[in-house]
Amino acid sequence: MPYTLGIDYGSNSVRAIVVDVADGFELGSCVFDYPSGQQGILLDPQDHHLARQHPGDYLLGLEKSVRGAIENASNVAGFSADKIIGIGVDTTGSSPIPVDENNIPLALNESWSKYLAAQCWLWKDHTSHQEAATITALAKEHRPDYIAKCGNTYSSEWFWSKIWHCLNSSPDVFDAAFSWVELCDFIPSVLAGVNDPREIKRGICAAGHKALYSDQWGGLPDKEFLSMLDPALSELRDRLYETAYDATEAAGTLCDKWANQLGLTAGIPIAIGEFDVHYGAIGCGIDEGTLVKVIGTSTCDCVVVHESKSIADIPGICGIVPGAILPDYYGIEAGQSAVGDIFKWWVEGVCGGDAALHARLSLEAESLAPGQSGLLALDWNNGNRTTLVDPMLSGLMLGQTLHTTRAEIYRSLIEATAFGARTIIERIAEYGVPIDRVVCAGGIAEKNPLLMQIYADITGCTMLVAGSSQACALGGAISAAVLAGEHPNFRTAQDSMTSLKDVSYRPIAANQIIYDQLFTLYRQIHDSFGGVRHSVDLSDVMKELIQIKTLSQKPDHSSDTDTQPTEARPHVELVRS
Amino acid sequence: MPYTLGIDYGSNSVRAIVVDVADGFELGSCVFDYPSGQQGILLDPQDHHLARQHPGDYLLGLEKSVRGAIENASNVAGFSADKIIGIGVDTTGSSPIPVDENNIPLALNESWSKYLAAQCWLWKDHTSHQEAATITALAKEHRPDYIAKCGNTYSSEWFWSKIWHCLNSSPDVFDAAFSWVELCDFIPSVLAGVNDPREIKRGICAAGHKALYSDQWGGLPDKEFLSMLDPALSELRDRLYETAYDATEAAGTLCDKWANQLGLTAGIPIAIGEFDVHYGAIGCGIDEGTLVKVIGTSTCDCVVVHESKSIADIPGICGIVPGAILPDYYGIEAGQSAVGDIFKWWVEGVCGGDAALHARLSLEAESLAPGQSGLLALDWNNGNRTTLVDPMLSGLMLGQTLHTTRAEIYRSLIEATAFGARTIIERIAEYGVPIDRVVCAGGIAEKNPLLMQIYADITGCTMLVAGSSQACALGGAISAAVLAGEHPNFRTAQDSMTSLKDVSYRPIAANQIIYDQLFTLYRQIHDSFGGVRHSVDLSDVMKELIQIKTLSQKPDHSSDTDTQPTEARPHVELVRS
Repeated sequence: MPYTLGIDYGSNSVRAIVVDVADGFELGSCVFDYPSGQQGILLDPQDHHLARQHPGDYLLGLEKSVRGAIENASNVAGFSADKIIGIGVDTTGSSPIPVDENNIPLALNESWSKYLAAQCWLWKDHTSHQEAATITALAKEHRPDYIAKCGNTYSSEWFWSKIWHCLNSSPDVFDAAFSWVELCDFIPSVLAGVNDPREIKRGICAAGHKALYSDQWGGLPDKEFLSMLDPALSELRDRLYETAYDATEAAGTLCDKWANQLGLTAGIPIAIGEFDVHYGAIGCGIDEGTLVKVIGTSTCDCVVVHESKSIADIPGICGIVPGAILPDYYGIEAGQSAVGDIFKWWVEGVCGGDAALHARLSLEAESLAPGQSGLLALDWNNGNRTTLVDPMLSGLMLGQTLHTTRAEIYRSLIEATAFGARTIIERIAEYGVPIDRVVCAGGIAEKNPLLMQIYADITGCTMLVAGSSQACALGGAISAAVLAGEHPNFRTAQDSMTSLKDVSYRPIAANQIIYDQLFTLYRQIHDSFGGVRHSVDLSDVMKELIQIKTLSQKPDHSSDTDTQPTEARPHVELVRS
Repeated sequence: MPYTLGIDYGSNSVRAIVVDVADGFELGSCVFDYPSGQQGILLDPQDHHLARQHPGDYLLGLEKSVRGAIENASNVAGFSADKIIGIGVDTTGSSPIPVDENNIPLALNESWSKYLAAQCWLWKDHTSHQEAATITALAKEHRPDYIAKCGNTYSSEWFWSKIWHCLNSSPDVFDAAFSWVELCDFIPSVLAGVNDPREIKRGICAAGHKALYSDQWGGLPDKEFLSMLDPALSELRDRLYETAYDATEAAGTLCDKWANQLGLTAGIPIAIGEFDVHYGAIGCGIDEGTLVKVIGTSTCDCVVVHESKSIADIPGICGIVPGAILPDYYGIEAGQSAVGDIFKWWVEGVCGGDAALHARLSLEAESLAPGQSGLLALDWNNGNRTTLVDPMLSGLMLGQTLHTTRAEIYRSLIEATAFGARTIIERIAEYGVPIDRVVCAGGIAEKNPLLMQIYADITGCTMLVAGSSQACALGGAISAAVLAGEHPNFRTAQDSMTSLKDVSYRPIAANQIIYDQLFTLYRQIHDSFGGVRHSVDLSDVMKELIQIKTLSQKPDHSSDTDTQPTEARPHVELVRS
């Protein structure tokens, strides 16, 4: 009974799991919260676009989480650490780290340790929006192929935008960096003992559209194009990589130092690194026709299409990259920049509440009928990743009265994210990629039945829930199991090692009718503020919301036996002093 | 040293004051909170448009507040109740009450006492929006003169909409009512002992545009027009009134019964009733060129123009009525359906806070620079009274990020109401009625310097504050003093009896520049959702807000000596476990 190790670097913590390659059973796990900054994220109070992480947290977390998971698994009879035959790592991304010529992050060097630009540039850092816009404009003019692969818009969340912004805003840090490594490539390289950034085995997943890598044009963007951004970026290209690999290839084997540090056997294979949701999609059993949604602070959507089929570029869809998720399949990636983060902002940031208030508002929101709040919101508090690819968009809510409650707002924010989800599904389907089933993973999918039902009602899709609570780490463990030869291919490995939970959420026809009306209004607001259409008549939106509200009141059981019209009903009480 | 009594019926309480006619000095006052419903308002949880009040509260409050004020004044040497020589009453409006043929409110009859439709229909009741829309449409087609006087839109807040809605929704109540009386006419009629509704002296202030009364067409709307609404309304016209009076006329003299009940001298004159803000305008010293703003739960704006001048109808301005405020002057009335109510909704309704939170958010909001929040809101949570005259509009906020705070939202709501105020001022000025000074009254004007400064910055007007905290009641007392012959006319009475507080708020040029930019964006959103323009390009609004936000950060004094660019500044701390 061999085991593999999956290590999942999230936005606030890293989790390691030990998995049985026969059936995906999780023997042990351990979470380590990044100690730096606010919940692991370094912020700048003067610029809310900034989000960095300290690379030292990753290395500390690597040891703590893996050792913890092994210790935890040791309670299972028959387990011992020497039966772990492979490691798979997934991380957030695009999260590039500036490193020196020995593959050591600049931030671990005392002279740079306190500089924000020398840290890991976390996926949700949006400081480079101007650079992203310029890359988009230059690519549209000079390299339309480059940009077609990423929905015609290059994002501020991605590799080149961030590195270029470092060059523009902190040239000293840029100059001190020998190279830049995606976090998902960095961790495997550390485990493999790679001490030259040029020798790191980079994954196609991160390289794909986010670093504008494609075999179609010979790897990374050509030097002429990079020179248009800045000659320094063209020079940097020589210190990056020529080839990126899919998950059929190993990132390396475990080096003595880290084998020792983690209590594992030296020489076991390390799977190529992928972004969390990509391995998460594998851990959810992704196949053609299946949309995997990993619903967390943000949401990532994954779809695969076999490489034997032709596939069009899809406007506004971030990336269509061969091998980015599964070998031999195009990986299609979409996502929403904030989902759980929006609810957290509302409940904790604005209402000043905690988990108890989350639960209370959820309960109150559940008692509302679709449309009853009269509210309509956009889900853009952190910009729009798909299909508008615009970080400079912001939140919007309308329909408020003097009676609007925090629970109504809470529900409307959930609905807003569901409308965003539907927009993505419709865009993908519109371009000939059918979606038959939706498998969801992540804490919200497991713990928020209200959200899941609203998603079913708004998207019209039955929402299934992944069997593993650690789908991303499980995907890494599956990749390691295939690499170690325990399964002949990913399909067989997924069939053995993944499952679904018993619960599922089916669309309720009556709710769909109301949400279809609200979605029409959502699209008007979406298209108007998102710049999709430049002259939308919005003069009836508020009135239509009131009309929907009037028609969609939940039946009040207290009045079931009361046939008097509202106006004639006696009022509750007349108090006299 | 004679005195007069001013009685002010607000939305939640009634206040009586005893005033020295020589200088307006307030000898005593007393507030009585209406005991029924929620803070004095009867609500329907199933219809947030509904707002009613129990007439019994008014009568109980009349005795309690007047007796309390007299008792309070009795502490002043030389005062005695028999030196009170007149009474002036102001109330909210349009707040019509169904009464029987003896001028007794239906709600005081046990068989109707628990029916919402039998109560006073409070000004902010919006249940009759459909009736209002139909009246507007019918008047536009058949009686354009009628509707031109009230900004081309008849409101759901007004007399005929409400009575017609009663007929449609509670025909039994309508049938039981012999007549309908505005609260501001009802209280004087009670004091005068009038026991036939047809004999009530009705004021031009309430009759004016709100009951579509004008000498131009012989009083109330003609029967043919009312029949178009419903023949029952045409029949009702015979049981209403033929003539309405301005404040040169008395509503009557104090009857024995109420003289006895209040401890006053029978036979003293009772001034014609006016709406609160109209008498409030007088209590603020209104004159040509002065805009009086009474800023409370909602805001009312008053301007006067001498009848010797020609004045055009102003689209979207609710009423231009001769004598509605001051005799011999056109009274022009505008207003915002919710101001204080919006802040109260936010702080208490959504954030679940109290007065302490109001104070804390106010303090935090004060530390923000204009534009710094990146937020933009519409002030339509209770519809739009002026200049769109549309109760079916609702609130809107945009620009939210994951970092938006409740204080930022609080400030943006204040700004929204200030943008609404500016829209009104610009509309009035556009039609040739110049505004040289703004005098504000009401609790918010006195207690919220942050709001007052924002209003100055956004409107570009210096904001003055009325000397009396009870400007409405004072206006009633002034009217009684003129009626009793203690002053030859209102000008003289106002000069003697009104004053300004020492504080004033002048526009800050730097703030005006930013607010002008934000106002341009506000107007885009306003015009788009308000139906003023049907194809506004909103695609840049969010981006412009971010640009304004980026440029308008308040200088951070901690970084005054720090010349490093943001990116290069060391971050605050790296915590290690």
